[in-house]
Amino acid sequence: MNLKNDLILRAARQEAIERPPVWLMRQAGRTLPGYREIRASVSGFKELVETPELAATVTIEPVDVHGVDAAIIFSDILVIPEAMGLTYELIEKKGPYFPKTIQSRKDVDALQAGEKAAQELHYVYEALQCTKQKLAGRVPLIGFAGAPWTLFSYMLEGQGSKTFSKAKKFLYQEPAAAHALMEKLTETIIAYLKLKIAAGADLVQVFDSWAGALSPQQYRTFALPYLKQICDAIQEVPITVFAKGAWFALSELGELDCNTLGLDWNTSPQQARAWIGNGKTLQGNLDPCQLYAPLENIEAATRKMLENFGRNHIANLGHGVYPDIRVEAIQCFVKTVQAWRYD
Amino acid sequence: MNLKNDLILRAARQEAIERPPVWLMRQAGRTLPGYREIRASVSGFKELVETPELAATVTIEPVDVHGVDAAIIFSDILVIPEAMGLTYELIEKKGPYFPKTIQSRKDVDALQAGEKAAQELHYVYEALQCTKQKLAGRVPLIGFAGAPWTLFSYMLEGQGSKTFSKAKKFLYQEPAAAHALMEKLTETIIAYLKLKIAAGADLVQVFDSWAGALSPQQYRTFALPYLKQICDAIQEVPITVFAKGAWFALSELGELDCNTLGLDWNTSPQQARAWIGNGKTLQGNLDPCQLYAPLENIEAATRKMLENFGRNHIANLGHGVYPDIRVEAIQCFVKTVQAWRYD
Repeated sequence: MNLKNDLILRAARQEAIERPPVWLMRQAGRTLPGYREIRASVSGFKELVETPELAATVTIEPVDVHGVDAAIIFSDILVIPEAMGLTYELIEKKGPYFPKTIQSRKDVDALQAGEKAAQELHYVYEALQCTKQKLAGRVPLIGFAGAPWTLFSYMLEGQGSKTFSKAKKFLYQEPAAAHALMEKLTETIIAYLKLKIAAGADLVQVFDSWAGALSPQQYRTFALPYLKQICDAIQEVPITVFAKGAWFALSELGELDCNTLGLDWNTSPQQARAWIGNGKTLQGNLDPCQLYAPLENIEAATRKMLENFGRNHIANLGHGVYPDIRVEAIQCFVKTVQAWRYD
Repeated sequence: MNLKNDLILRAARQEAIERPPVWLMRQAGRTLPGYREIRASVSGFKELVETPELAATVTIEPVDVHGVDAAIIFSDILVIPEAMGLTYELIEKKGPYFPKTIQSRKDVDALQAGEKAAQELHYVYEALQCTKQKLAGRVPLIGFAGAPWTLFSYMLEGQGSKTFSKAKKFLYQEPAAAHALMEKLTETIIAYLKLKIAAGADLVQVFDSWAGALSPQQYRTFALPYLKQICDAIQEVPITVFAKGAWFALSELGELDCNTLGLDWNTSPQQARAWIGNGKTLQGNLDPCQLYAPLENIEAATRKMLENFGRNHIANLGHGVYPDIRVEAIQCFVKTVQAWRYD
């Protein structure tokens, strides 16, 4: 099916376009009334993730309401650890929780991985197919996965953490077992992304949300080689890597075979360009809290951001949109980007 | 009283010394058996902070056990919000909690500040005097305070946060009230540090623990001007600024009138030197999780760190020591630094 709006794909491939495309991380979610209604009608977050028809509906809502230039499939990065053998729960107001965590090499060896694990996630692929059909080519559909280190952290910590000291302790004390788990995760992520692409994803993004917890040395040893394997394996569609907090590894991230690098709100595009050059598209990076400001300030800050990035930019926030942000604030951000024209 | 070991003061003043001094953030605490015993004998953390004799005893324990080159007064950064009018609690395994938080300009105006607020913290100054006496000049005593932005965050959030979205929202929605609170905090911090110095602190450190939550623009507007006021006001003893996660502001932090800048474990000394030049001493920055590794790896990583920093360095971790780190691991770190000699 031909896409009516392929701006984000052309931006990712660094083709000449008249303005940057725009979408928001976590654009499908609590900020939207349709989402809140559907969420209230199901038993929990996981039922929503696992019901393709509902996942498709919430995926499309921000395209209808905000007119963003891409949809991103409604799902969770933790479906992969679950497919590998560690089920997760989502505890209201607390976040994800794994009743069983990885404690030893034996636990790593017991996990299933690769194609076999990825195939368990049929509800994700069905959600993608269903979304593609409903979207009818209006905008591209983004598929995503957590990066190996970020999924590893959850599997070791069992939940979010301020220090990630359990996960990092395992890197320092059991490096061989840590690499074994990273390999299993990498295989599974690659198989998963390929199945997502087969089901209709037009672009994929890898989220390394906890990248900033590692030292440059540990990131080089335990994260970058696996991100490289993923980027090398995904050649079918453009790929974006968003390693939050990994400013110290940006020059190395710039060497990955990916189209786009995401930036958090700490990192200026000028600084990023100084580290990675002009070979990639950059995505980001308005401070998500900027959307709490009065509308005229949001508009001014968005224009400032667009000016700073220049060409080869996919406009977004520097992190997921927060659940209490007003619809009008999001619309102001989106409309400001869409009204922008490159010189 | 003459100091028998003034290495850290000479390092802060960039004098020629034979090896770097070493101490650890949170060196007085749960890693030590004497601390755990005293902690078990009191009603809670606050009783310990507020009892000068006990605070002095736990302050000195790491000097006795590890032979570190400085003591840091056992206290908490949240004594300042409390002196200004917001009491805090420390909830076991959860961290600090403020039953009442700042919601509006009116709440800001109701806070007391400056000299008057600082004078309420008599137990801190008594603890410093008591510690100085017991130390009898063995090593210098460090006093500390939270930075305005970090204390502001706690006063708005009421507790730790992943996003600091309440505190940041206030910056975007109520900038004038936010500046008013920053000013009150700054005045109080300056008065507090001066009283600490009068009570015997030989060096002071300002902790901006949540610096990394702000965008470069917000940090420039709401944090740096107040850090500058503090550094300009404190001329009696050397001052260290540790702005965790504020890599993006390092060149501006380098312009502050402080002696030493602390680095977290994400920031290499080479990168820091490129941003700030050679005019200041650097403090840090071993990954706190490195101390989970086998002793021979701790030694190797510590030596590598010392090599990377070169001269004008105060050895430390890149963050506070975690409570489950073994005494032997800390000792390995300390002894490795103390055995080092500059060429």
